[in-house]
Parts: sequence; C-alpha cells; structure tokens
Amino acid sequence: MWHVQISKQRRRRQQQLQQHGRALLKRLERHQRQRRRWAWQATNMNDLHDGSFHAAISPVLVIAQCFGLMPVRGVRAATERGLCFTRCSWRTWYSLLYIGAISFDALFAINFALHGGLDMRSVEPIVFNGSILWASYQFLHLAHQWPQLMWRWARVEKHLPPYASWKEREQLARRIHSVASILLSLSLMEHLLSIISSVYHEVCPLRQDPVESYLYAVSAQFFHVFPYSNWLGWLGKLLNVLLTFGWNYIDLFVILVSIGLSHLLTRLTRQLQQLVERPMPEKFWTYVRTRYRSIVELIYDMDDAISGIMFISFGSNVYFICLQLLKSINEMPSTMHAVYFYFSLAFLIGRSLSVLLFVSAVHERARDPLRLLHLVPPSGYLSEVQRLANELSSDNVSLSGLRFFNVTRKLCLAVAGSIVTYELVLIQFHEDEKSWDCQAGKQ
Amino acid sequence: MWHVQISKQRRRRQQQLQQHGRALLKRLERHQRQRRRWAWQATNMNDLHDGSFHAAISPVLVIAQCFGLMPVRGVRAATERGLCFTRCSWRTWYSLLYIGAISFDALFAINFALHGGLDMRSVEPIVFNGSILWASYQFLHLAHQWPQLMWRWARVEKHLPPYASWKEREQLARRIHSVASILLSLSLMEHLLSIISSVYHEVCPLRQDPVESYLYAVSAQFFHVFPYSNWLGWLGKLLNVLLTFGWNYIDLFVILVSIGLSHLLTRLTRQLQQLVERPMPEKFWTYVRTRYRSIVELIYDMDDAISGIMFISFGSNVYFICLQLLKSINEMPSTMHAVYFYFSLAFLIGRSLSVLLFVSAVHERARDPLRLLHLVPPSGYLSEVQRLANELSSDNVSLSGLRFFNVTRKLCLAVAGSIVTYELVLIQFHEDEKSWDCQAGKQ
Amino acid sequence: MWHVQISKQRRRRQQQLQQHGRALLKRLERHQRQRRRWAWQATNMNDLHDGSFHAAISPVLVIAQCFGLMPVRGVRAATERGLCFTRCSWRTWYSLLYIGAISFDALFAINFALHGGLDMRSVEPIVFNGSILWASYQFLHLAHQWPQLMWRWARVEKHLPPYASWKEREQLARRIHSVASILLSLSLMEHLLSIISSVYHEVCPLRQDPVESYLYAVSAQFFHVFPYSNWLGWLGKLLNVLLTFGWNYIDLFVILVSIGLSHLLTRLTRQLQQLVERPMPEKFWTYVRTRYRSIVELIYDMDDAISGIMFISFGSNVYFICLQLLKSINEMPSTMHAVYFYFSLAFLIGRSLSVLLFVSAVHERARDPLRLLHLVPPSGYLSEVQRLANELSSDNVSLSGLRFFNVTRKLCLAVAGSIVTYELVLIQFHEDEKSWDCQAGKQ
Amino acid sequence: MWHVQISKQRRRRQQQLQQHGRALLKRLERHQRQRRRWAWQATNMNDLHDGSFHAAISPVLVIAQCFGLMPVRGVRAATERGLCFTRCSWRTWYSLLYIGAISFDALFAINFALHGGLDMRSVEPIVFNGSILWASYQFLHLAHQWPQLMWRWARVEKHLPPYASWKEREQLARRIHSVASILLSLSLMEHLLSIISSVYHEVCPLRQDPVESYLYAVSAQFFHVFPYSNWLGWLGKLLNVLLTFGWNYIDLFVILVSIGLSHLLTRLTRQLQQLVERPMPEKFWTYVRTRYRSIVELIYDMDDAISGIMFISFGSNVYFICLQLLKSINEMPSTMHAVYFYFSLAFLIGRSLSVLLFVSAVHERARDPLRLLHLVPPSGYLSEVQRLANELSSDNVSLSGLRFFNVTRKLCLAVAGSIVTYELVLIQFHEDEKSWDCQAGKQ
Repeated sequence: MWHVQISKQRRRRQQQLQQHGRALLKRLERHQRQRRRWAWQATNMNDLHDGSFHAAISPVLVIAQCFGLMPVRGVRAATERGLCFTRCSWRTWYSLLYIGAISFDALFAINFALHGGLDMRSVEPIVFNGSILWASYQFLHLAHQWPQLMWRWARVEKHLPPYASWKEREQLARRIHSVASILLSLSLMEHLLSIISSVYHEVCPLRQDPVESYLYAVSAQFFHVFPYSNWLGWLGKLLNVLLTFGWNYIDLFVILVSIGLSHLLTRLTRQLQQLVERPMPEKFWTYVRTRYRSIVELIYDMDDAISGIMFISFGSNVYFICLQLLKSINEMPSTMHAVYFYFSLAFLIGRSLSVLLFVSAVHERARDPLRLLHLVPPSGYLSEVQRLANELSSDNVSLSGLRFFNVTRKLCLAVAGSIVTYELVLIQFHEDEKSWDCQAGKQ
Repeated sequence: MWHVQISKQRRRRQQQLQQHGRALLKRLERHQRQRRRWAWQATNMNDLHDGSFHAAISPVLVIAQCFGLMPVRGVRAATERGLCFTRCSWRTWYSLLYIGAISFDALFAINFALHGGLDMRSVEPIVFNGSILWASYQFLHLAHQWPQLMWRWARVEKHLPPYASWKEREQLARRIHSVASILLSLSLMEHLLSIISSVYHEVCPLRQDPVESYLYAVSAQFFHVFPYSNWLGWLGKLLNVLLTFGWNYIDLFVILVSIGLSHLLTRLTRQLQQLVERPMPEKFWTYVRTRYRSIVELIYDMDDAISGIMFISFGSNVYFICLQLLKSINEMPSTMHAVYFYFSLAFLIGRSLSVLLFVSAVHERARDPLRLLHLVPPSGYLSEVQRLANELSSDNVSLSGLRFFNVTRKLCLAVAGSIVTYELVLIQFHEDEKSWDCQAGKQ
Repeated sequence: MWHVQISKQRRRRQQQLQQHGRALLKRLERHQRQRRRWAWQATNMNDLHDGSFHAAISPVLVIAQCFGLMPVRGVRAATERGLCFTRCSWRTWYSLLYIGAISFDALFAINFALHGGLDMRSVEPIVFNGSILWASYQFLHLAHQWPQLMWRWARVEKHLPPYASWKEREQLARRIHSVASILLSLSLMEHLLSIISSVYHEVCPLRQDPVESYLYAVSAQFFHVFPYSNWLGWLGKLLNVLLTFGWNYIDLFVILVSIGLSHLLTRLTRQLQQLVERPMPEKFWTYVRTRYRSIVELIYDMDDAISGIMFISFGSNVYFICLQLLKSINEMPSTMHAVYFYFSLAFLIGRSLSVLLFVSAVHERARDPLRLLHLVPPSGYLSEVQRLANELSSDNVSLSGLRFFNVTRKLCLAVAGSIVTYELVLIQFHEDEKSWDCQAGKQ
Repeated sequence: MWHVQISKQRRRRQQQLQQHGRALLKRLERHQRQRRRWAWQATNMNDLHDGSFHAAISPVLVIAQCFGLMPVRGVRAATERGLCFTRCSWRTWYSLLYIGAISFDALFAINFALHGGLDMRSVEPIVFNGSILWASYQFLHLAHQWPQLMWRWARVEKHLPPYASWKEREQLARRIHSVASILLSLSLMEHLLSIISSVYHEVCPLRQDPVESYLYAVSAQFFHVFPYSNWLGWLGKLLNVLLTFGWNYIDLFVILVSIGLSHLLTRLTRQLQQLVERPMPEKFWTYVRTRYRSIVELIYDMDDAISGIMFISFGSNVYFICLQLLKSINEMPSTMHAVYFYFSLAFLIGRSLSVLLFVSAVHERARDPLRLLHLVPPSGYLSEVQRLANELSSDNVSLSGLRFFNVTRKLCLAVAGSIVTYELVLIQFHEDEKSWDCQAGKQ
C-alpha cells in the first residue's frame, strides 16, 4: 500500500541508501583491485584456486588429448596466456592420425553396411563413425580457435564481481570435475559391461575362443574384408575404445562449456541479487549492463565455435535413443545382456537429458537478471536500468545447434514427442524379425 | 475525434480527477488499515470468512492427510502462523507408511507386469503406481515447504486491496470447496461404478464368490506370488482405494492452487479496472506494480514447489487417456461395463481438461492487467505505468511442468493433436486382439 | 543520408507541416461533424449507403433467420438502435423448434451409428448433426448479445475517420454481399449436384422409385426405426436442407464478422497512411491510439461472443476434409459421382481455406499500423507514438477458437501438416474395404 | 568495473569523440556525393563494377529469358532506368508461348496419370508440370512489377554507405555469378547423368533404338495418345529441358534475390559496426534508422512480389524429397542408375537446403543491427537509438511463402521432422511393390 505521509522520511532514507550505495561501490572497487593483484599472484599457485574456467577445464582437456581430441598446447599452463595452437606440434599430428584412423574405419563400416540392406539398424556403425569423425574435425578446428576464446573468456572473468570466499572460488572447478568424473566413470562402466556381456555370455559365437570371438564381432567391418588375425582384432578394439571415448566426450565437452557459461551469468546475478533493491547510481547499472553484454557476446562466440559439436551431439543422441528403444522390443538372449542393455539405455537417455538440461541452463541463467530488474525501486529505475531491461527482454540468449534449434527446456518435450512418434511407426516395421545380433556391442 | 477547443475544460477536469484520485487513495488506505485490524480479529471467528487461501484450502488438506498425503501440522489453525512441519509427528510417519506401502505394491506390480509381455497396456499398473509414488514423495517434500509458502502467500494477500463485501470475501473458499467436492464425488462415483461393474457383471470369474473374485482381480499382483487369502484381498483393496484417491488428489491439488493464484491476480485486476481510466498519482502505480510483482514472485515460488506434481499430473493424464481410448475399440462384455467405461473415460478427459483450463487461467489472469493499462489516459501515463506495461509484456507468467512446458490454453491443442496421432498409430498394432480383461478395473 | 546544412529550412518546413497538420485536423473534425449529421439523415435512406456493419450484414441475417438461426429482432432496422432480443418472439420460438428438430435427428443418427461399428466414417452423421446443434445453440446465445455488440460496433464506427467517397462507403456492404452470395450459391450448387448424382445415378437402389430411394437414403436414420413413408422422407429431406444451410452458414458468418472487423482496422490504417509521414500533434496520436484501442476491445468482445462458433467451424472443417480425403481413395461408381465428389471436396477445402484467410486477415490488419509507425519522422515521434508502438508490438490481436488457438496464417500450415499425417495413417486402416455407400450424400 | 574518478577525462574524451563523429559525418557525406557522381559515370562502363543488384543479376535474367521466363525488357541496360515491361514485346510472346506449351504438357500429363492409379508417385508429373506452370505465371506477373521493384531497390542502394573499395563493390556480383554458375552447372550435370543412365543402361526398353526408347519414355504422356514419331519425341525432350531449367531456376531466383537483400543489410551493418562504439550524433541514428527502414520496406515489397514463387519452391522441394526418399528403398537396376539416383537425391537436398539457408540469411542479417545497438555507449544512447532498438526487437523481418510460413533457420528442423514422419508412414504402403519404372527420368 502506498503511504502518502512518509515522503520526508523516505527522501532521507533514500539519501542514506545512496550514501550506502556509494560506499558499497568503493568497497567493491577496492575488492576488485585486490582481486586482480591476487589473481596475478595465484598464477604461481595451485591452479584449481584460480577460479578461472581455463584452470577448471584443463584436466578434462588433458584427458581428451590422450584420446586425440582438442590438440591445443598449454592446457596445463597457469593462465590462459600459455595456450597456443600450432600445426606442427605432436598433439596436432596425433589428432590428425586419430581422424585418419576413424576415416578408414568409417570406410570399412560403409563397405560392411552396404553388403547388408540399408535400414535404420544396419546404418548404425556409419552414423556412429560418421558423427565422431565430424566431431573430431570440429574439435581440431576448435583447437585452432581455443586460445582466442579462452583469452576472451578470461577477460570477461576478470571484470566480473570478485568471489566472496575461497569456497565460491573453487565451486566452478569442483562442479566441472565432479560432472566429468561421474560421466566418464559411467561411460567406462557401460563399456566394461558391454565387454562382459559379450565375452562371457556369447550368443552366437563366431570363433571358438570367446576373446577372439569378441574381437571378431567388434571389428566385423575389417574381417569382412581381411581374414581374421589377432593384431587386427586388438587394433579394432583400440579404435573402438577411442571411438567410444570420443562419443562420450562430445556430450561431456558440451556440458562443461555450458557449466562454465552458466557460472559467469550466475556470478553476475548473485551480485545483482544483493544490490537490486537499493537505489544504485547509474554507473553501477552501466557496469552491470556492459558486463552482461560481454558475457552474452562470449556466449555467442562460443556458440559459433561449438554449435557444430552441439548439433552432432543432439543428432546422434536422438538417433541412438530411437535405435535402442527399437532394439528394446527384442528378446534378450540372457540376463547379463538384459542388464547391460537397460543400463546402456538408461545411461544414454540420462546423458542426453543432462546435456539438454545443462545447455538449456545457459538460457535460463541469462533470463534471471530480468526477473531481478523488476525489483528495482522506482527511485533507482534510471535510464540504464530501463535499457538493460529492454535488452534483456528482446534478447534470446542460448546455445544452439548450428542455429537450427535453440537449446531450451522446451526443446526436450518436442524431441521426446518426435521420438515417441518415430518409435511407434518404426515398431510397425516388424523389427522384431531381426533377432538380437552379435555385432551390436559397438558402443 | 480529438477536440481542439476543449483544452481548458480538460485541464480543469484533470485537476478535479487528480483530487478525486487523492481522496480515493486516502479512503483505500483507511480501508486497508481497517482491514488489517479486522483480519486480526477474524482469527477467532469462522475461518471461512477470513478470505485467505490458507483457510480456504484447509478442509481439503485435512482430507488429504486422512489418505497419507501432505503431512503438515496445523492445517486447521486459524492463521497460517499455526503451520509447521516436523519429522517426528504422527502425520509424517503415517505418510511414510503410505509411501512404503505403495512402494511394495509397485514392486509387486512390476513383478506381475514382467511376467506378461511389456507393452502399452501391461505397463499400466506400473505407471499408475509409479506416478502416485513419485507424487507422494513430492507431497512429502512439499509439506516441508508448505509453512513458508503459506506465510509468503498470506503476506501477499495482506497487501492486496481489501475485499468490497462479505460475499467477495467468501468467494475463494466457496469456489475451492465446490470444485473439491464435485471432483471428489465424481471420483467416488467412478470408483463405485468400477466395483459394481466388476462384482455384479463378472466376465471371466477367477473364483466362485463374486466378492472374492473381485478382490482376487484387484490384487492380482499379490496373488501372482501368494496364494489367495481374504485378508490380503481386503488389504489390496484398501491400497487400491488409497491409490485411487491419491491419483485424483494430484489433479485436485493442482487445480486448487491454480484457483488460489488466479484469485490473487483477479483481486488486483478488479481494483485496477475501477481506477484505470482516471489519472492516478505515481504512487498508485508503484503500489500496483509492486503488488503485481509480489504475486508473480509467489507464482514462481509455487511453481518451483509444485511443478513436479504438475508434471506427473499432465504426464499420467496423457498416458491414461491414450490407454483408455485404445481400450475403447474393444467389445464391451456387458452394458454395465460400457456404462462404467464411458463414464470413466468422460471423467478422465473432463478432469484432465479442467486441470489444463484452471492452471492456464493463471497465465491468462496474469495478462489481464496489460489490457487494462492500455486504457490509461495520456495524462496519467507516468513512467511507472510504462515500466509496468513493459514488464507485463516481457513477462511470461505461468505454471509449468518442471519448466519443460508452460501451461497455457495453447498447450491443449498440442496435446490433443499428439494424442490423436499416437492413437491412430497405436490402433494399428491390432490391440483388439487383446479382449476385455478382468484385471483392468484397478482405478 | 543525413544533411547537416539544412537544419534551418527543416525547422521552417516543420512549422509549416505542423500548421498544415492543424488545418488538417480542423478539416477532419468538420468532416466528422458533417458525417454524423449525414449519418442521421441516412437512416431514412437506402441502408446500403450507411456504410455501417449493421446495415451491411442485415440481408445475410434475414436469410439466416429463414433457416432458424440468429433469432434477433430488428435486423432490417435502419440503425443498430432497432435491434433487440426477446424470448417470446416468433423468431426465438422458430429457432428453438429448429434446435429441437436437429436434436431429435441427432438422436436418430446416434442410434443409427451405434448399429454399425464406431469408426471415423460411421460417426460422420453424428459429427455433422452434433456440430450444427452446438452451433445453433451458440447462435441462439449470440442473438441475445447481438444488440449490445452492434451498439458497441456502431459506437466504434462513429468515431473512425469519415469515408472519403460514396464508393468507399459502399465497399464494406458490397464485399459482404458478394462473399455471401458466392458462398451460398456454391453451397446450393453443391447440394443440387449431390441430389442429381444420387437420384439419376443410383448405385445400390434401396427402393424402386429413384426419388423414393433417394429420400430413403437421405433419412436412413429414421427408416432404420420406422417403416418407409413418403412424408417422413420429405421431412427428413427438409431437415437435411436446413442442416446443410446451417453447416455452410457457420463458416459464412465467421467470414462476414471477420470482414467487418478487418474493415474497421483498414479504415484507421488508411487515414494513418496519409498522415504518418508528417509531424502530427500529440492529440492526433491520442486519437489514433484510443480509436485503435476501441477497435481491439471490440475484436476481443466479438471473439468472446463468436469463438465457440469459430471452434466448431474449424473443428468440423478439419474432420470433414480428413473424411473426404479418406473417401477419395475409393472407386467412384460413375462419372457423375466423381464430378460431384471432387466438386464437393474442392468446395470444402476452398471454404475452409477462405475462412482461415478471412479470419487471419484481422490479425494482419491489426499489425499494419505498427509498420506505419516506423515511418513517423523523428520530430513527430512523441510519447504517444511510442506508447502506441509499444502497445502494438506487445498486443497479439486475433480471433480465436475458444482461445485454444489463435487464427493466423501460420495456423494453416500446422493444420495442413496434421491433416496429411492423419490421412497417411488413416489410409492404412484399409478403408477401401468399405465401398462407396449410398448413405453418404448427407451434406 | 565502473570508475568513479575518471568522469572529467571522460567528458573531455566524449567531446573529442563527438567532434570526431561530426568530422566523420562530413567525410561520409562527401563520399556519398562523390559516389553519386561516380555512379552516374559508371553507367557507361562495365556494369559489373556498378555494385548494384540490377547489374549483378542481369546475366542470370538473360539466361532465364532464353528459357521463356521473366519477359522484362532492358535487363542488360546500364542502369535500372532502362527496365520496362510491355505486353507486345517478343519476350512476352515467347513467355506466353512457353506457358501455353507447359499447359498442354500438363493436360497430357494429367490424362496420362488418370489412366494409372492416383497415388504419391503417379501424381509426380502433374506436380512437376503444375508447379512450373504456376511459377511461370508468377514470373510473368513479376516481370510486370520488376522495373518498379528495381527502381526502388536502386533508390535504397543509392542512400546506403558507399563501398570502401573496388573489391567490396564487386562482391555482390561475384557472389551472385558464382552461386548461379554452380547451381546451373550442377543441374546440367544432373540432367546429363539422367540422360546417360536412361539411354545407355536401359532397363525395360520400350523401343529397339535406345535414343528412340529414351524419347518415348520422356514423352510418355504424348505417346499415350499419339503414335510414336521422332519429331514429337524431340519436341517432348525440348519441353522436358525447358521444364527442368524452369524447375531449377525457381530455386536459383529465390536464392539470388535473398543474396541481394542480405547484401543490403550487410552494407548497413558493416558501417554500423565501425561507428557503434563511438557516441554518434542523433542525425547519424536517424540516418541509420531510415536506411534500415527503407531496406525492410524493400524486403516486404519483394516478399509480396516473390512469395508465390517461394511457396512453390518450398512446396515442390518437400514433395520431391519425400518422393525420392520413397524411391530410394527400391532396388536399383544398375550401378549407373544408382549413381544418378544418389547424385540426383543429394543435388535435390543440397539445393533445397541452400534455398533455405540463403533465404533465412535475410532474417538473420536483419537481426544483426540489434546486437550492435547493445554496444552503444550510455552517452550515445539517444532517443533515436532507443527507437531503433525497439523497432528492431518488435519487427520480424523475413521472406515468407505467401505469409503461410516465415523462412528462418528454425523452419529447417520442422520441415525435416515432417519429412521423416511422412517418409516412415509412406514406406509402410509397400511402395516397393512398384519396381523402378522407366518413365521416372523426367527431371
């Protein structure tokens, strides 16, 4: 209810608040300066404590480089200044070798598939190989842009409000590491289960020795052309492991970048949350607006850089969910197979859903400040606040898949609806005629 | 047509209007103060007359607690201050017992379903049990948050324009009670019809005594494991009643909360409607804006708290409508069965539609003020009005299902279209092969 | 390109323009006054020349009343003041008799359909009768509101810019009359073709005399219960004619109201078009804004009144297009049948499409002023212009089907896509088993 | 972070910047004047260097005229002033002759199709002929409007910021020529492949001589009526070539116009990009806004003129992609056929996708300035900037298909989703019963 009589007290209170506001601004600037000095020193310390995205994601990039992806130099460097990309490093050569190997594998897979009929299921290895091949190329391209992107990211980070505590500073790194380790362990577990279910519970053994039989099944595309030999089998298995890692890494990378971008927005929102109900000076809002703008520009740049990877991630996930649901109507040859199959299906759906939720979180975090701006008191609703509110409501910030679709939570239902429709129609093709086949243990 | 000559009279009229406006503001404030005093006294009187959402929904919550849902203390208290949640109250234990019992039932149902083939229909008891289990857990979680939510709700109510009359004050309570009693009686009627159609018009009797046969069919998941015994049959029937109530209560609760939220918006809009065409002072618009904002923030908070329940409500309704439509192509074994079946189908569709309409009303009520703001005369179109208009047009206020979908009237056609598509495809699976089976009388 | 040097001339030109503007305003007001005087006189003259919607639609309403729809009194009155609705007029009784007759027919149709199997095609007469029954009830309800709606409409018309010429004044009436006569003649032609194709090219004659056989087929729902008698046959045929007219009239009415509403918006836009590039005074913009607002409020009110009819119109059109497309895969028994069938299908699709285009034109006309506002010169971009622009861009003005869907051009593709999907799936039900049946000549 | 102490320097810097701004404006105007003078002289020089859309598209229009499309005079004229349309030119007569020939062909095709059953595949020649017939009529109509459109286009071009270099000036022409030559060569290659695969690898030879047999197959709709004769065969082949060119030209024309429109927006954005971070005077923003507005109005006008062609382009592409995917499940009679078929399918999908991407680029380019406006410094955020930002965020600029759908990147997924759904359902019609038929080599 509005109070007519209290205008005087109100004016006095406002002046006090504005004084508080100015004092607060000074304190914030002091913090900022201190933070910069501190950040400079921290480069020599444990890089986890830096609080930067570069430091947080570096262990994951190291793992990726072991599997031939993202051949950028200096991922373990203390600051993003250490990053660089050269064509002649061993990392690039390793990555090119990896891409070459997958290309060959893809050619064999196409050859193998062409000798069966072309349908939703026989096309599986081609889609699997093809999507990872495309993604690897995209990662190579991304490695080229990575140093610039990280420099821009660090610049954005530097101008954000300083962390309040050590705990807050480590939050990003801890979140990235826990998500990465959970996803990678689950994918490892899924892969081991696939091996166990194939080796110990062979259904239609292709060779006498179960291990040989497994290797034969895994590299069927090679042995369709060449006679069986152990070393080729192990090579095929190695490639299969690299591919499986690459397949999981696509989703993981997309998730981690989204976590990083959401974190930037959260930091800005957190500061806004504390100050939004006080009448702040115009300069504060200019600061908030330019900071918000710089984050959004970073998001657009990251989107340009990774939306190809995002497109593959979503596309292949939808394809494989459709395929696995289709397979689910088959009889399972043994309990072990059933356990593996449903674990694999749950993992696939869970991973796809978490990609969608983490990526769409960027969109939601980018909308949060708008809700806070509505709480600005009338005396503090200056032209800069209005401009920020207008820009926020007209913007549609989100990561996208080659800009063909924006990733928001709404996308989930649309995709689920399509999957159900396709599934219902596909099941009518009498897919049950094809019984459980031994070559399906690829992922 | 604009009138050039009348500017003088207009200015005079404006001044008069502004004086009227100020007088009005004073009167409103006086009312407001009176209202608060009055609200304080009313706590000792009949709580129906309080006009608060807490008082209006309390009888429904008492019924829910009889069935083990929403174990919050003090639902019959005079004000929301009496609400609290403790882990050690008998309500919580009763609720946990209820959840435990459903979990066991769900396990038996899964076991039972796995021994038939897995398809759209055999999965029914699992979906039925599972969705109620999840909802019960959500209600337990909600009970924890309920006191805080009701305190916030009461705070929002206290600052809204006072009721004009006793009739208006009772409107909310009467609406909630009538909706609750209609829905609960219909669900009771549907349940009794299901018993009658099963007991007196047995199709494929499983046991000689019709009552025993009915109990056998209702608790088929138990008797698949244990031999038949009367007490287990009655226990199964009791669980079945609890589940059926829980299933209906999910929808009812969602409807009642939506009615409450719509009511808040309506109260604000009603006041606006009377004053919008006069040039009101800036303070009035600040008041309207902050009140509107507080309601919207309450809606967002309620959405966070109940969107899980909303998701289950919509999901299970869509599934059961698909399933019942699919069953409708079967031959009915008797007229009694046909009557029950079509009553049940109509009840299901009617309930789902009313959930959608009541929940989407929140979205529509939240848009209403925007239409009114367009009627503000140019002389009264101050910066606060503009700010409110901007905020209203950029907001998208609505309840949601875990934010995967916003509930608006548009959703209805999308859902109906999907149901028709799925139905057409599903019917092609020759579901008619399965004749009317005796175990389907679960809900 | 901006011109630095010409600021002086510009200022002078601006002053001239503003003087022009004021002179223009005076002229417009004079016209307005003259127009009112003139409108008063015109009530005694040919009502076509009035230019009002009431006068334009009156002949169509007279025809509707012959067929028992819209029982409102005074549709031929010179002004909308002559309209009234009373329950005890012969029009109302005639309308109730009509509704009663359709209800009986619907009951017989349900009875007839229940003795065949329930599927997409046997349900046709029920949908046909049911939708017209609902629409008739809606028209009865609308008749009650019609006088108020027309008074509001006339008030809106009175304050719009005057017509420039006699030709412009007659435009609305001419448009309404030509659309009505084209649609009604086509529907008459379609009905006659249906009779000819049935009578002269009997496929499976039910009785010896071709006329008797035709009557027997048309009123099959009666003769399923009663033995054949000529008078019952003719009564059935009479009902059939009434129903067919009602079915066409639903669409026609929706089109005519949309034409009327679009016309209001066009009149405002036309004036705006001439003046938008000059710097007009604030009052002009207040006038435009309030006029636009009054039209939009009228559209919302009309939508509340007719959106039930709109819903039936769209729903039944989609159903019948699906059904006719489904029938199109049958063999035609003769060329005459083929001619009738494809004419009927083309008429149905054409009518549905024109409903959609005419109704969605309201949405498009309501967006037009926004495009014009972008042309306002900077010197004339006053706060009222900005407010109008803001309101226009946040509004979403359109007619709707019970607010479940807004009718815009985009709807067309969505509906067409759904029809194609349903059609493809439906055709798979082997509908061709059912050969062309003699009872299908109902519409 | 905002800096409290530096306000003085800032003000000084601002003044400097504004002086720079003014100096810049003068320079820009000088350039502009120079450019106009220069443009006048350029009419006598190589028209490629003019940088105008008229000059850039003229060679493509000349080719189109060879095939009877777009009968407008003066396409090779130095400026757009040379364009005119008269009904009595030989171009118009040639075009009418072309339309007449296609109409006859279409009639024969309908006759031919009616003697087979009507389904998705036999309807192909009708759709092919019909869509080109409609498009030809649209091109004739467009030729009538072309001179006016090009005059407006030239007026818009004249007021845009001048080109910075010769390279930039030639960019549009080079882009248009390269896209046109790539698409036309690919379509030529596809047509030749179709001839080769038909002539040298005849499957079911209709006549002894392979060429005669090919001609027979190509003009099957004629030889269904008339006996075989060589000249009629060659006439049919000629028509077939004309049709195939027309079919490809529809897409090409839509792409080229989109490139032209995107180019206009890019020129404006490029200038904005350089100046947006400086505080520019109000006049600059008025200039930008009116220039942007004139481009948008041109886009709306072009959309009115070509949206019919756009609709045919999208509709026929969706139909033919569905059809070719459906054919892809057939066995190929020879490797040559397989090569042709997959090349043809890839060409079709690639062409359709590039139409979508080029056309949707107009929408994206029209959004770009909004992103730049967010970078305007607070001191330069004048009311004109705000107005431009508001207009940009409320506008929805894009080309459309008869306004039934707006062409944006989002459309792509919707269309792809529909194609997959239709495809899955269509395949179930056992289309494989129909083996590869010799008449399908039409395009």
